[in-house]
This record gives sequence, C-alpha cells and structure tokens, in this order.
Amino acid sequence: MFGGGGGKSPVTWSPSYFPVLSRARLAHCPASPRLVRKSRGPHGVRRRESPVSLSRRSSSSCLRSRLSGILSPPARYTRWTRRSPGVGVTMATVALVLGVSLLFGWAPLGAGATSQPPNIVFLLMDDMGWGDLGVFGEPSRETPHLDQMAAEGMLFPNFYTANPLCSPSRAALLTGRLPIRNGFYTTNGHARNAYTPQEIVGGIPDSEFLLPELLKKAGYVNKIVGKWHLGHRPQFHPLKHGFDEWFGSPNCHFGPYDNKAMPNIPVYRNWEMVGRFYEDFPINHKTGEANLTQIYLKEAVDFIKKQQAHQQPFFLYWAIDATHAPVYASKSFLGTSQRGRYGDAVREIDDSIGKILKLLQDLGIKENTFVFFTSDNGAALISAPKEGGSNGPFLCGKQTTFEGGLREPAIAWWPGHIPAGQVSHQLGNVMDLFTTGLSLAGLKPPSDREIDGIDLLPAIVQGKVIDRPIFYYRGNEMMAVRVGQYKAHYWTWSNSWEEFSQGIDFCPGQNVSGVTTHSQEEHTNLPLLFHLGRDPGERFPIRVSSLEYKDALLRIFPIVEEHKRTLIPGEPQLNVCNPAVMNWAPPGCEKLRRCLTPPESKPKKCFWLH
Amino acid sequence: MFGGGGGKSPVTWSPSYFPVLSRARLAHCPASPRLVRKSRGPHGVRRRESPVSLSRRSSSSCLRSRLSGILSPPARYTRWTRRSPGVGVTMATVALVLGVSLLFGWAPLGAGATSQPPNIVFLLMDDMGWGDLGVFGEPSRETPHLDQMAAEGMLFPNFYTANPLCSPSRAALLTGRLPIRNGFYTTNGHARNAYTPQEIVGGIPDSEFLLPELLKKAGYVNKIVGKWHLGHRPQFHPLKHGFDEWFGSPNCHFGPYDNKAMPNIPVYRNWEMVGRFYEDFPINHKTGEANLTQIYLKEAVDFIKKQQAHQQPFFLYWAIDATHAPVYASKSFLGTSQRGRYGDAVREIDDSIGKILKLLQDLGIKENTFVFFTSDNGAALISAPKEGGSNGPFLCGKQTTFEGGLREPAIAWWPGHIPAGQVSHQLGNVMDLFTTGLSLAGLKPPSDREIDGIDLLPAIVQGKVIDRPIFYYRGNEMMAVRVGQYKAHYWTWSNSWEEFSQGIDFCPGQNVSGVTTHSQEEHTNLPLLFHLGRDPGERFPIRVSSLEYKDALLRIFPIVEEHKRTLIPGEPQLNVCNPAVMNWAPPGCEKLRRCLTPPESKPKKCFWLH
Repeated sequence: MFGGGGGKSPVTWSPSYFPVLSRARLAHCPASPRLVRKSRGPHGVRRRESPVSLSRRSSSSCLRSRLSGILSPPARYTRWTRRSPGVGVTMATVALVLGVSLLFGWAPLGAGATSQPPNIVFLLMDDMGWGDLGVFGEPSRETPHLDQMAAEGMLFPNFYTANPLCSPSRAALLTGRLPIRNGFYTTNGHARNAYTPQEIVGGIPDSEFLLPELLKKAGYVNKIVGKWHLGHRPQFHPLKHGFDEWFGSPNCHFGPYDNKAMPNIPVYRNWEMVGRFYEDFPINHKTGEANLTQIYLKEAVDFIKKQQAHQQPFFLYWAIDATHAPVYASKSFLGTSQRGRYGDAVREIDDSIGKILKLLQDLGIKENTFVFFTSDNGAALISAPKEGGSNGPFLCGKQTTFEGGLREPAIAWWPGHIPAGQVSHQLGNVMDLFTTGLSLAGLKPPSDREIDGIDLLPAIVQGKVIDRPIFYYRGNEMMAVRVGQYKAHYWTWSNSWEEFSQGIDFCPGQNVSGVTTHSQEEHTNLPLLFHLGRDPGERFPIRVSSLEYKDALLRIFPIVEEHKRTLIPGEPQLNVCNPAVMNWAPPGCEKLRRCLTPPESKPKKCFWLH
Repeated sequence: MFGGGGGKSPVTWSPSYFPVLSRARLAHCPASPRLVRKSRGPHGVRRRESPVSLSRRSSSSCLRSRLSGILSPPARYTRWTRRSPGVGVTMATVALVLGVSLLFGWAPLGAGATSQPPNIVFLLMDDMGWGDLGVFGEPSRETPHLDQMAAEGMLFPNFYTANPLCSPSRAALLTGRLPIRNGFYTTNGHARNAYTPQEIVGGIPDSEFLLPELLKKAGYVNKIVGKWHLGHRPQFHPLKHGFDEWFGSPNCHFGPYDNKAMPNIPVYRNWEMVGRFYEDFPINHKTGEANLTQIYLKEAVDFIKKQQAHQQPFFLYWAIDATHAPVYASKSFLGTSQRGRYGDAVREIDDSIGKILKLLQDLGIKENTFVFFTSDNGAALISAPKEGGSNGPFLCGKQTTFEGGLREPAIAWWPGHIPAGQVSHQLGNVMDLFTTGLSLAGLKPPSDREIDGIDLLPAIVQGKVIDRPIFYYRGNEMMAVRVGQYKAHYWTWSNSWEEFSQGIDFCPGQNVSGVTTHSQEEHTNLPLLFHLGRDPGERFPIRVSSLEYKDALLRIFPIVEEHKRTLIPGEPQLNVCNPAVMNWAPPGCEKLRRCLTPPESKPKKCFWLH
C-alpha cells in the first residue's frame, strides 16, 4: 500500500549510506496515479485493478516528489538533488560526495561524479555455471573481459541463486524474497522444480514489490533487456512491475513451434510484441547462429547512452540467454571457442560485457555505475557438453540443490568504490541484489514483509562479512541450508530413477553414494553434513558420530527451526497450466497481423517431472 | 660420454637464443675429473665408477673451460663472459644483451641485468592439484602470492606431468624424458604405478643426463631443496647427478617408524644426513604441525642470497612436500585456512613463494631469474578432504591417467621477459623444464637420445604454440594420448575392484561408465575419445560412429604408431625391492652415532598394487 494512499509506507528511506543535505526540488507533475489496493485475478493471481501507466518522466521525478511527504525520512536524510541539464553541481552535491566518501572511505569521485544515485546494471546470465569463467578456473580461459572485470572489482566465490531453476531465481532476484515466499513454486508435487513455460497461468503476483518498481521512487529509469520469465500474461508484463522499457521475451527461446499446437515465443519492445523467435528473430539450431546477443548489446548501449544524455539515473537488467539451450552465437563468434558452441556463446557475452563496461568508462560514468554480474542457476549439465556449461569443482548442476545447482559466478564492479582485485567470502544470494539495489538508491526494503536479501554494500565497500544462512529450496521443500562453511542436506534428490534410466542425468559422471540419490531421501533428523571449505564438491559427508557434526548441527538446527517456524509461504503461482494462455495473441499482434487463435481454455495441474 | 673423453658430445651449444661475441676466459683449474665410461652396478643399475666430486668452483668455471674445445659451437657462438667481482661489464655483455633483446623483442634489462644467463628456479609441489590455486578456481582463493605470480607472468592451463606418481614424474622433469625411457617404471605388472620407497633398489640411472649436471657446463650452481625421490642408495645421491647442494630427504616423509622394521627417513645436508624425520625434524600427525616449509624456505633464501653475492648463475630446484600426506604446516599457519589442514599447507607454501619472489625483486635479479611453478602429479583424492587437494573440474586424481592425475597447475614468471597476465595454451609437460632450462643456459639437449621435453621459450617469450602430443603413461603402458584438444584413451583403469571394495578410491564421487573402470580395459582398436575443450571432465565420450571421431583418430593413430615404433624403453628401475637397502646407515650417520644395522639382504620383486 504505497503511493497515493495514506499511512506508513513499507518503503522507507535509508539513513545509513546517503546523508543528503538538501531536499529535492519539487516539480510540476501530472495528477497522481492511483495505485489502488491489490485484488485477486483469476487463478488466484493478485493483480492491480488499474495498471500503472505512468510515463517515465512522471514516474520518476514527479512520483518521487509526491511521495516525499509520505516517505520522508528524518529531516537530515532526504533525496539527492537530481542534476538537470543546465543546473550545476550544488554545494549539497559536494557535501553528499564528501559525506559518502567519509562514510565509506571512498576516494572523491572523478569526472564522472554526479549528485545522482549510482546507476545500477545487473548482468544476469542464463544457465551459466560457476566454472564457466576464466577467473573461476575454466581451463580455456576465454573470458578476458569478465576476468578483467573481476580484476578491477570484487569476486564472490560464495554467491548463490535462490533456486536451481530460472523463473524462481529471477523472481527472487527482483523481489528479494525466496520463491517460497513470492509464490514462484508449485505444490503439485513434493520438491519439484517449476518455472514459467507458455502454458503457465501464474506469474509474479501483483502484491510483490519488484526492485524497479521501488527504484522509480528514487528517480530511476528501468529497462529489462532479454528474458523476463515472471509470467507472460498481460498482468505480469514487466512494464506493469516497474520497468519503463523492455526488449526481450517473456519465456525461454525454445522452438521453433508450428503456431498451431504451440505459438512461437514473442519478442517485445516495451508494451508490444515486435516479432517472434525463429520467425522474425532467427535461431539456427543446426549452425547455432543467432544475432540476439548483438541485439541485446545494442539495446543496452542505446539505453545507457540515452539515460546518460538525460542525466537520468538508470537500472539496466540485462538478462540475456545465449548460454541457455539452444545456445547460440553470432556468426563472427561461431567456431571461435575451444569449448565448442557453448563457448562461442560465452565468448560473445564476454565480448559484449567488455563493450558495456567500456561504454560506461567512455561516458565517464563508471564511477557512478554499480555493475553486478551473476547467473540464474547452475550450468545445465544435461545439455553438456555441446550446450551446457561447467560448474567447476561443484557437484551436479541445474535442477539440483547440490552446489552445482545454485553456486553462481559473481562479480561486483564499481570503479572508485571497490578497490581492484578484491575477493569477498560473503555468502551472497541473487536476492541480495534487490536489497543492495535499494540501498544504492538510498531506499530501504519494504518493512511489511520478510525480505531474504541482505544489503551487500558493507561487504562490497567496507569488506565486511555478514553472517547469514543460505537456504536451498526445490519447489516447496527446503532441501538444504548453508551456515558458515557447513551445508546440511535435509533432503537429497537428483532426479527419479525413471528419468535417470531414460538418460536424463543432472550429475553426469558424478555419483556420491547416498547423496546424489535418485529417490527423494529425507535426512531431517540427521542431515547429511559437508564442510564446503574442505570439500566443496560434497563428496565426503562428515561422520554423524563426530564432535564436528554435533557442533555444526547445534548451530544449524535453530536457524532452520526459526526459518520454518516463521515462514509464510506465498500462494503458489506455478500450479496451473492452460494451453489457452500461451502467447497466441500478445499485445501488438494486431498491428503486425500476427495474432493466432487460442484454443479452448482447459486449465489443469501442471506436471513437473523433477 | 661427455666430459674428459674425446669424440662428439651429445651436449651442444644452442645457437638459437644466445649469440655471444666473446669467448670465456680460461681459468686456472684443477686436474680434470675423470668422468669415466659408465658401467653396471648391482641390480642392473648403471653407475659411474668414480663419483664426480668436483668442488662447485671447479665443476662450474673450470669444467666449462675444459669442455670448450669439445663442446665448442660454431665460432660465433660461445659462452658468456662470467662477471667476476671487480670485472666490469664487457662490450661482449652489452652485445649479448642487445642480441637477445633483438632476438626476443625483450626490453633491455634494468638494474638487475647482468651478462649471466638467467637463474632458474623450479618450484615443484607435491600432490598439489590443478584446482588448488585461486587463479585456477579454488573457491577459497587462498593463494594470493601464486595468483599474483600468474598475474605478473604466464599461466599454463594445459600443463602436464609425465606420470601420475611422484618419482617417475620427478625423474622425467630432471631428464626431459618419459619414465619409460629413463627407467622410472616397473615391469612387475601391467600398467602399474611404481615409485621409490625405502625398499627400492633402483634409482636414477647413471646413464641419464640430469638438468643440473648439464647446467654446470654453463656455470650454474645447483641446489635441490626438499624431496629427491630418484633413489636413496649412494650412487643415486643428487650430488652425484649434478647438484652442488642438497637440503632435504631422499624419500617421502612417511613415518614415524620404529627404526627396527623400518628406519625413519633421513634428512640430508649435501653429502650427509643431518637427522631423521620425526626424530630431528618432527612432524606431528595429530596437530599437523611441522616447520619444514619454513626450513625449506630458509634454504632457498640463503642459497639465492649466496649465489647473488657471488654473481653466480644458479639453479634452485625447490621440491617441497607439505601438501603430500601427511600434510603439515607451521604453527602460525595451522588453522588459518578455510580448507582445513591441507589448505594450511597450501597457504604456507603460497606465503613462502611470495617471499622467494620478493627476495628476487629485492636483490634486483627478478629480471634475470626464470621461475616456474608446477606440481609432480594430480591431487591425491584418496587423502581428501583432510589431506588431499583438488583437481578442479578434472576427472579423478593421482595414480590415474585421467586429467586429474596428470594435469598440473603451472605458472612461468620472468619479469621483463614475459608480459604480465598472459595465458599460454601450449600443451606443456614437466619434461619441458629440462629442455627449457638448457635453453635458458644457452645449451642444447643431448643429441644421443630421445628427449621428450620441448623448449618452452618460444611459447613463453614469443607466444607461440608448438604442436606436440602428450603421452599419459602408467608404468609400462601408454594409457592415453592427447593431440590438440583430443584425448584418446587406449587403456582405462582407476584401480582394482578389490582395492575399491576396501575403500581405496582414486575418483571419489566420480564415476563415468566405461571410463573410470575398475578392471584394466583395452581400447586400442577403438580408443575412448574426448574433446577436452568441450569436455575437460572426460564425461562424454565422442561417438565412435561420428565423423569427428574418425577425423581425430586419423590424426592420433600415426602419432601413437610412430611413438611406439621408435620407443626404446629404458631398463626398469622399479622392479626390485630389498629391506637391506633402506636408509639404515646413510652417510654421516657415524658422526651422529645414528647408524642402524641393516637386515639381511633379501631382494625380491616389488609389489605394486595399482
């Protein structure tokens, strides 16, 4: 209940990082948008009754000013002075920079310094594994730009995603909350991974606050490039959840389909589709050629340039998908990797990220742009070696709650703020990007709900290590937990014997007796315990009879007990499927004369195999 | 037949890298030592009839002068002018430096530049795995000095040892030859790993030329610190094979023994023992405490300082063993690693290497000292997690011919010559260190025998990649070969079912069907083929019916055929064991009153389990 209504907002300004000495100028703004009480749509999906359709200008500067009365922090903490063209750097700006410098020990910023909050760029990979980067030990070492990014920034070797599958991890990133809370899970079976294929009815609940939605209040312009994956029906559209711009697709780039049994996946520009994969945006399965990464790169570059020209703080969520099967690369990258097609895709991504970072440098805004690189889940070993990556020394991959399923490559880059070549052993999570993003914008996370993400800035800027657990969920089950170096498996499962016997293997070449089980095994009373420092590959369970086991579990049990006791699961969004909701007639199809006729509505329980 | 005798020496001067414009000054030298024809000793071991006991001075400068008539290259290629104290840099020196600079594109050297050939430092680890360094993706990233060494030098992600076990790989490093050639193998069983425990009768044959032996001819002073492992009987003593100094042990630091059934392993200083492990050099199995790495560090530091003071080119072979079970660390490092005791050992080694590199810098000789870091074989997963390391993404470990058994961490460091932060995809091998060492000294390898090591300088200094195969031997069998990215297994074996059922597992948590076999499986007609770029973990054999398989084998078959056709196996040194030859009464024991009485001689065939 934030926005025009009265009462205490769950979003508050953060006093901790950005003491600012002047108030934002009030601007003439259009009428306040009504952000009305959320209500339930069909299939239990909450939605706003009237979509937020603020223009970018109104949504950023004006909404901020309107909210200032409601959200105002104690007098000495207010918002930045946003520098408009022609308006010089105020004394307040100088004071802000000095204040921040003193607080963080930052060097005063260079030419790129402005009074704006830092721009935020999240580079989210798709199915890229921990072991896919040179800096994380990939033997071919074909990621010079990402390695350089790490050399100039901070590496997080203990960074996790919130789920071993794409949609839930992306929902977690943008909401700062575990999928079990934000609804991105299923109760159709126990401990089943679920996501958002075309048939899915659910999506991101309207009741969830997404990062871009909140960043708007700090004047940010937000763009998503690439895969959304939080639901493709109209109410789930990213521009209804805080993004100002979108170029990309709502679902995976699977296909081609015949547009009869199943439509090809649409590609959107903002509100409307502009074409479909395989038809207008070709992906050649045979050769692996597709120029999508180049398109996504251009979208990023254009957006950054535009916001910089407008002196507008921005959030870019670059959620590209070339490393998700079917993997692809542009012609000039095909055949260039020692690693085959998957490596070609990685090389093109690496090259593109190099270009993005260079652009930030060339524009003089690198010191005012926080960039974070990570991935949505572990490498899909089921697609290896041709179309799957590497989880380095870790066990199994995507779909599992072993380290290979959730440990992610991660790099923070913010020249002038992060000393070069740092390594943080902070246990991090994609959910932290939500909280950290808010913190960068001077915002505090909503106070009316449980937020799992922590603010990483103390770890990133001050080198602190914050004690926090990592929960490994698979669907509706907490399979494992990490506390310090100890990981306790409460449940183990790779996949079923039935699947496994058909050649579906999430742990190819790996088999740890009693650990990579092909039936769901409960260990709640005596969890399987590993020390991830000594044994990152989860090969050597600690003896139950040892003192070490006892001591570790004494730490872990209360944390799990508290977590389970206080957990309020969200309404599961991934239970119902219906062929009628597929991307038959996305908005904009009329203009293109590309609308397809949906079949009869036949809602059914989605079937999740593993 | 080099040295005093006539005829053509197999050792020749290399014209390729070091054109020198003046002849060495002739010095007054003691009488020529008789390096007489080699003859056979007991157990088929060749030995010199009179040991070489030249003093360092005579062996370096004088032998060199004496040999000049025999070994002299074409007139324009001769030796360096060695700079004696008080003797200034000659014009010839200047010409040399310029010549080398022109040839290699090197920048003229700085303050540390001398007319000397570069010093050579080999840092050889024991059982350290490819995945044990931060720069190779170890998640705890506890090797800042080695990572920095890589950042300043050149990383070799495709570097191998010549054998998955210690003694043969060390013999290969120092001779430049495969163990099957230099005799470091057994024929007691098929494809069995063998090494040099105390009972071993054999050792490095006198007929083999070792790197230090040859380097002496270029004026080098040579020291081995740590584990020799090429035989502990008198004729195998490192000072009889080219080393001028030794501090360390002939065998592994196993123990403690009771000095009745088996003596504790002696520690030597030069010719004589100065004590024994566990008695005089304690290793506490319970706490893991031992200060040996500190002692080895001091030995290195003192040696480097001394040679630098004498303006003497030196070869330091720092063959330490803290990462070989029983792993150990000094008190100040114990308990400091996230990885447990093994990590403590790694951290102390990393710290020590940092100190060695800093010393080279402080002494102003870093630009005249070539340093290479690598390991003798893959991590001993059988000792993991407490006392074994990590092979990163590779399959299995020590004892096997999968990548985890032979792929090694490797870094070359030579400031001013190697541009910082380079990665070379050259397929390298520890045997190359022999040839590269000679090349650095301006020497060519012996021409009367097959040398498997190649000169890495073109790869290191000029960035070239030389096409060469890697042979993976286990005992008397070529198990596999790598050609380019393709690896073909002609035989597969991890260990026997019998051993495996007793819990001895060289591939814990890993099991690739038909690959990590527990019986010796021959695939000579249709080798198991892997593409190591796409599939470094050897999990996905390439289909025999594929065109790729056919094309790859068409490249591989002739290379293997040629190798086997021309191979002349050396006389196997690791067949005979005898409790009477153990370290009962090493030289020097009389002075210490620590001689033990050997039992009756009972030669027998050594039994090699795997």
